[in-house]
Amino acid sequence: MAEAVQRCGVKLRPHAKTHKLPEMAARQIAAGAIGITAAKISEAEVMASGGIRDIFIAYQLIAKSKLERAARLSLSGIRLIIGVDSLEGAKRISEAAEREGAELEVRLELETGLRRTGAAIDKAVQLAKQISGLNKIKLSGIFTYRGAMLGGASTLDVRAAGHEEGRLMADAAAALRSAGIAIQDVSVGSSPTAAFAAEVEGVTEVRPGTYIYQDRMQAAFGTCTFDNCAGAVFATIISRPSDDLVIIDGGSKTFATDIQPDNAPLFLKGFGHIVCDPDAVLERMNEEHGMIRVKPDAVYQVGDVIRIIPNHICSTVNLHSFVYIKESSGKLRKTAVAARGMLE
Amino acid sequence: MAEAVQRCGVKLRPHAKTHKLPEMAARQIAAGAIGITAAKISEAEVMASGGIRDIFIAYQLIAKSKLERAARLSLSGIRLIIGVDSLEGAKRISEAAEREGAELEVRLELETGLRRTGAAIDKAVQLAKQISGLNKIKLSGIFTYRGAMLGGASTLDVRAAGHEEGRLMADAAAALRSAGIAIQDVSVGSSPTAAFAAEVEGVTEVRPGTYIYQDRMQAAFGTCTFDNCAGAVFATIISRPSDDLVIIDGGSKTFATDIQPDNAPLFLKGFGHIVCDPDAVLERMNEEHGMIRVKPDAVYQVGDVIRIIPNHICSTVNLHSFVYIKESSGKLRKTAVAARGMLE
Repeated sequence: MAEAVQRCGVKLRPHAKTHKLPEMAARQIAAGAIGITAAKISEAEVMASGGIRDIFIAYQLIAKSKLERAARLSLSGIRLIIGVDSLEGAKRISEAAEREGAELEVRLELETGLRRTGAAIDKAVQLAKQISGLNKIKLSGIFTYRGAMLGGASTLDVRAAGHEEGRLMADAAAALRSAGIAIQDVSVGSSPTAAFAAEVEGVTEVRPGTYIYQDRMQAAFGTCTFDNCAGAVFATIISRPSDDLVIIDGGSKTFATDIQPDNAPLFLKGFGHIVCDPDAVLERMNEEHGMIRVKPDAVYQVGDVIRIIPNHICSTVNLHSFVYIKESSGKLRKTAVAARGMLE
Repeated sequence: MAEAVQRCGVKLRPHAKTHKLPEMAARQIAAGAIGITAAKISEAEVMASGGIRDIFIAYQLIAKSKLERAARLSLSGIRLIIGVDSLEGAKRISEAAEREGAELEVRLELETGLRRTGAAIDKAVQLAKQISGLNKIKLSGIFTYRGAMLGGASTLDVRAAGHEEGRLMADAAAALRSAGIAIQDVSVGSSPTAAFAAEVEGVTEVRPGTYIYQDRMQAAFGTCTFDNCAGAVFATIISRPSDDLVIIDGGSKTFATDIQPDNAPLFLKGFGHIVCDPDAVLERMNEEHGMIRVKPDAVYQVGDVIRIIPNHICSTVNLHSFVYIKESSGKLRKTAVAARGMLE
């Protein structure tokens, strides 16, 4: 990813949501990333205490206590940028910065089709001017998250999605600059679209997350193969109640359920890819049980351990307090997922 | 719950999966429960170190390391029972007990319709005899989990489901006793069915979990009202991009997605009940964003905090490293969810 976007002269700022580990963020930076993306002030604090010096919280911080923590973090010698998409939000940022004796760098989030946060593009100039007029706030860029799943199955084209996302934002940046707003950073991208969005003139930064571990969703996008998937769940067969059914010791508290099977545009079968038996389907789960439909002649025995690539690695990692990192030596190192489960 | 089942002369052994906190387990025991249920050896260890003296791991322990930990825990002066549903599993239990110089008490899990773990009822006598013939293993009871969702919407009758579950297991216990197997404990029940299953002659114990906090699913079952729901997520409005859309700072890493909207038999609308605005629908989520469809004239402002009762409290608590417990004084006490996110 670092190489692909550097070829375009674009900066890589991976989203730490996938790993939630300062050591992985440090490895991404060593490989060429300029900094890291986070979603919460608590996550940014964990990254900063792990030595990361350039952090973008690509999220609206609204609560006074969170903004004061952000202002204090920005005074600790690191570059901290936070997201904003409303005048009310900008006022809160400005007030917290004033209270704490800081100046906060912000990026304006724009809405590019996902219908979640982000100001409408046709209101960006007006809002940017209002934000720029506030004290102790420095508007330096714009950002969006659009992903690759807009438009449903018939348009699952990650190249086109990346180009569209890049064009929308490059155009928005041009309009803002024409209105006298100094926009340096134009930040876009997801794991499937980042390399394509980076090809668009005017895009300066991409923020993919999943690519560090990859997962079954990314394989369905064509972003990777199953062999590229570094993150997996190892589960034990605990019961084989019938020829066509195998039960593993992992269910909805082990495999994330946010990417449901059978839904457009990916139409994934079940909740994970069974590496040793790709036709087997992890079709039902309770909290601690996974029900795998297998061929009647499939050889599974109680006690067998199988490797499963989850549909969505980010939300799956988020379920676990610990992961095992496999060292080059082959040794497994148990590691606490430092920035997971944060309230703030 | 304690009162309801005690009236039937039945023991209550709540499942700790909902709270994952020894202090809540202790309160359940103080209110009349005889012990606690867990799903993992690591959870049982947390409960034991929190002072709980009678623990049933209602789950197949298969890995050697887990079974050895179970054997050692059983030697620490507490009553520990573990689940078994196969001869292979029973042999592993027996071997671990022998290695550790322990004797392990087990209950045979029976399959009563959910198609997950559990031996077929018509094979119970044969399997129970085989298990009883092994060394250092003491078969003292049978158990099942059936829940209330079998049969789909047209048969959503928690009373009938509870009675059916109780009858299936009471009959199975009678058949085992006729064959000379000394079955003391007949353990059944979920939060919606427990009080009804307890009415069935021959049932000796119920294992509901969710009832301690309650949730939207239980309200849909008719087990509680929204006023009875003790567990809630407090979320902040971070954006209002359009009149009919409000964005909160909680998504699929905050609200569990294992109970999906619109599915039979409950047909829940969205991922949670918005207490201040019951017609609003938390209809989409990304990892950190919740998209709530509201009436265009609904008064929501950036910074407002709203209370949301999740569809499924157990898996929602499991997403969070901390909960806030509200004391009688009204004070909030931040508490680590001690037994969550365990690997083993």
